Amino acid sequence: MKQRILVVGGLAAGPSAASKAKRVNPNAEVLLFEQGEHVSYGICEIPYYIGNDVKDASKLVSYTPQKLQQVKGVEVKTLHRVEEIKPSKKRIVVRDMYKDTVSEHQYGRLILATGASPKRLGISGEDGRNVFHVKSLEDGHGIKKFIDEEKPKKALIIGGGYIGMEMSEALKNNGIATTMLHRGPLPMSGLELETRKAVLSELARNDIEFIANTQTKAIRTDTTNKVVEVGTNKGSFQTDLVILSLGVQPNVGFCSSAKIRLGSYGGILTDQRQATSVDGIYAAGDCCEVKNLVNNKWMYIPLATTASKQGWVAGENAAGGRAVFRGVIRAIAVKVFNLEVAQVGISSEEAKNSGFDAVTEQITGDSKISFFPGNTKVTITLIGDKKTGRVLGANVYGGAGSVLRANTLAVAIQHKLTVDDVFRLDLIYSPPFAPLWDPILIAANQLAKRF
Amino acid sequence: MKQRILVVGGLAAGPSAASKAKRVNPNAEVLLFEQGEHVSYGICEIPYYIGNDVKDASKLVSYTPQKLQQVKGVEVKTLHRVEEIKPSKKRIVVRDMYKDTVSEHQYGRLILATGASPKRLGISGEDGRNVFHVKSLEDGHGIKKFIDEEKPKKALIIGGGYIGMEMSEALKNNGIATTMLHRGPLPMSGLELETRKAVLSELARNDIEFIANTQTKAIRTDTTNKVVEVGTNKGSFQTDLVILSLGVQPNVGFCSSAKIRLGSYGGILTDQRQATSVDGIYAAGDCCEVKNLVNNKWMYIPLATTASKQGWVAGENAAGGRAVFRGVIRAIAVKVFNLEVAQVGISSEEAKNSGFDAVTEQITGDSKISFFPGNTKVTITLIGDKKTGRVLGANVYGGAGSVLRANTLAVAIQHKLTVDDVFRLDLIYSPPFAPLWDPILIAANQLAKRF
Repeated sequence: MKQRILVVGGLAAGPSAASKAKRVNPNAEVLLFEQGEHVSYGICEIPYYIGNDVKDASKLVSYTPQKLQQVKGVEVKTLHRVEEIKPSKKRIVVRDMYKDTVSEHQYGRLILATGASPKRLGISGEDGRNVFHVKSLEDGHGIKKFIDEEKPKKALIIGGGYIGMEMSEALKNNGIATTMLHRGPLPMSGLELETRKAVLSELARNDIEFIANTQTKAIRTDTTNKVVEVGTNKGSFQTDLVILSLGVQPNVGFCSSAKIRLGSYGGILTDQRQATSVDGIYAAGDCCEVKNLVNNKWMYIPLATTASKQGWVAGENAAGGRAVFRGVIRAIAVKVFNLEVAQVGISSEEAKNSGFDAVTEQITGDSKISFFPGNTKVTITLIGDKKTGRVLGANVYGGAGSVLRANTLAVAIQHKLTVDDVFRLDLIYSPPFAPLWDPILIAANQLAKRF
Repeated sequence: MKQRILVVGGLAAGPSAASKAKRVNPNAEVLLFEQGEHVSYGICEIPYYIGNDVKDASKLVSYTPQKLQQVKGVEVKTLHRVEEIKPSKKRIVVRDMYKDTVSEHQYGRLILATGASPKRLGISGEDGRNVFHVKSLEDGHGIKKFIDEEKPKKALIIGGGYIGMEMSEALKNNGIATTMLHRGPLPMSGLELETRKAVLSELARNDIEFIANTQTKAIRTDTTNKVVEVGTNKGSFQTDLVILSLGVQPNVGFCSSAKIRLGSYGGILTDQRQATSVDGIYAAGDCCEVKNLVNNKWMYIPLATTASKQGWVAGENAAGGRAVFRGVIRAIAVKVFNLEVAQVGISSEEAKNSGFDAVTEQITGDSKISFFPGNTKVTITLIGDKKTGRVLGANVYGGAGSVLRANTLAVAIQHKLTVDDVFRLDLIYSPPFAPLWDPILIAANQLAKRF
């Protein structure tokens, strides 16, 4: 009998898993269900589409369902929502949302790539027609259309994390006066204090009003279901457009009835082969928690890179292979107007909570020779463990070259290099590209003095 | 009695060694001799000074002799040439070139940082008044003055290595039509074939005429000692200006009489503490050979980064400390007009000659998301060892972000990561900075298939 591999979810991990499974076992029947209309598109690019950096929306889509079928041999069912898993029968219950019918599908192996959903405020009015999340291509088209047609003058962004940063630039590019409401004292929770201050300054420099320590209390809509005012503990804000960027949570609705083990962050737990606790069921991407290789703890950090790699591994293993995904260190970056911001590894707070003897040092260096045209400043906060000397994490922010320098530190962190190892790295010096003492080396040298 | 540390050479390693020695032992008397007029300046920036990227020549000087004295407590004697070492008496013979007198100086510890000298053609006429090397601040001022005063229209660059590349852009910035004569078939010996072809194309795109496989035979000067024509096996070339960029050789003139051990490339051999074979004498910088950490072989690769680090180590140890410098991997980069070019680790040829089972793979990827504004192509040639799986070296060339990506690979090479390790690196994905699959990961994935 032909092997039957069903994949649930068509955004990043799903197509990756399905394509890999088909490649590993070309005789398998691989079927992918996606509840939305589109598959395999870049969610991370949507703020840049809204901000007009990317003009052509079709570029966001890597594979249409047809192309996934033709090129990868994966059968795709869009507008099909999986509603239940019956592991004892190896069946899933699927609703065809177009026909509104329900059917059961047998699987040999099942791969869950159900992704994540945006968190909600839980306040009446948040479904107003000018309130948008930034979590799907449909969201992107919705925002774009609203801006084009209704020409909003004022916007509120609720939530000052990564998406909030990117959307503030996207809205400014559209000439929209933007206010950001954030629950914490500074934007970008999870980054080091000085990094967060730098982000705040960059927002201010670009006329984004940042309102700290804000809880949204009430939303007032007009007769057309358009939000006109948002009430908070810091006063009321009139608005023409609301972006909700409160973070996301894993889509695991049908996991508990199937007894698939979840972690403390609510995501699916898998082993290194991306197998869940239930026989024959794999999981990959934003619906999963992931092991952090720095402190060996589970974390929830939905990222396209992880989804893509876990998808490969789940697909290969579902098709009979033996691939492993060991985990992540957390390697993330965001462009805040003219500021490059990156985080690799764990934060100083996570380091302390993980039992490390965490020591932190911050330095600012030059990206090129100081007097070279185009030189910018790069600030590195390096977090090390006094006991072992290991580098645990870093924040890097500044001008061009900051983010790519974080990647160099990422290698050091993933491979458990010590601060002394980093200081002894043989890195490039060339006036147009890097100074004699790269900021990375300066940071390591200064941190070593604290040990 | 006060410890007496003498340092010979004032460019990069010398001031670094002298300053460090004084810092480690503030009671020591530290005296530095330099045969030129200037100390502690950036030689690597000189092409950019000539090319008008750097306008202010004073920026090139990090420390004047006075500043080195005041800030670092190092006594500096410029225009003092060391002519002989007498290790049995722990003395050096120094000529005061200003007064033209000779004196002997006692040392407790001696640090040789004598640097390197440009190679010469060995042809009559090469000392013509319009023939320049690019090896000292004096050279830089000489070229600048000649261009400003005599407004040359045509130039010849003899030697198509790193300095040749940088000078071709510097001369073009001055509106000078430039021809490069190179002894090999392609510029930049030591890089991989495809990289060298890309460099050749970039030269052509910028109107630099490249004449391959050329030996210089004769130089014709006019009555003012100005070279007007250079004869080669590829014909004669009229010129107004000649740049000689044939590489450099270590300055070790007085080493053999002092029985200081030299290596097969003619540089001083030291241990990891930068001690030479002669008791009490240390060496650092361009006068030394250096251990390559990838194949554990000695090599001669004069670089400011190495000089600076070796200087620290020699200085610390001369003052009684116990520092080590383990070696380099070779991490170099050059800007060829709009092309970033970098090499880290060993070449495919060196890998074969070092007994590795070398396999090479080349890929071209995107520096950002492919459809993002400002995206450029990055080409990576990755060299791996089939036996151990180790990454041995890489060439990276392309647009912005190529050189800093080489640094990420440098960490992998220095710490002996395998190709599989590199493929599993958790690197940043963010549309403005890097694609979902960074070119580094694509290169590793493709090379792994060859194993």
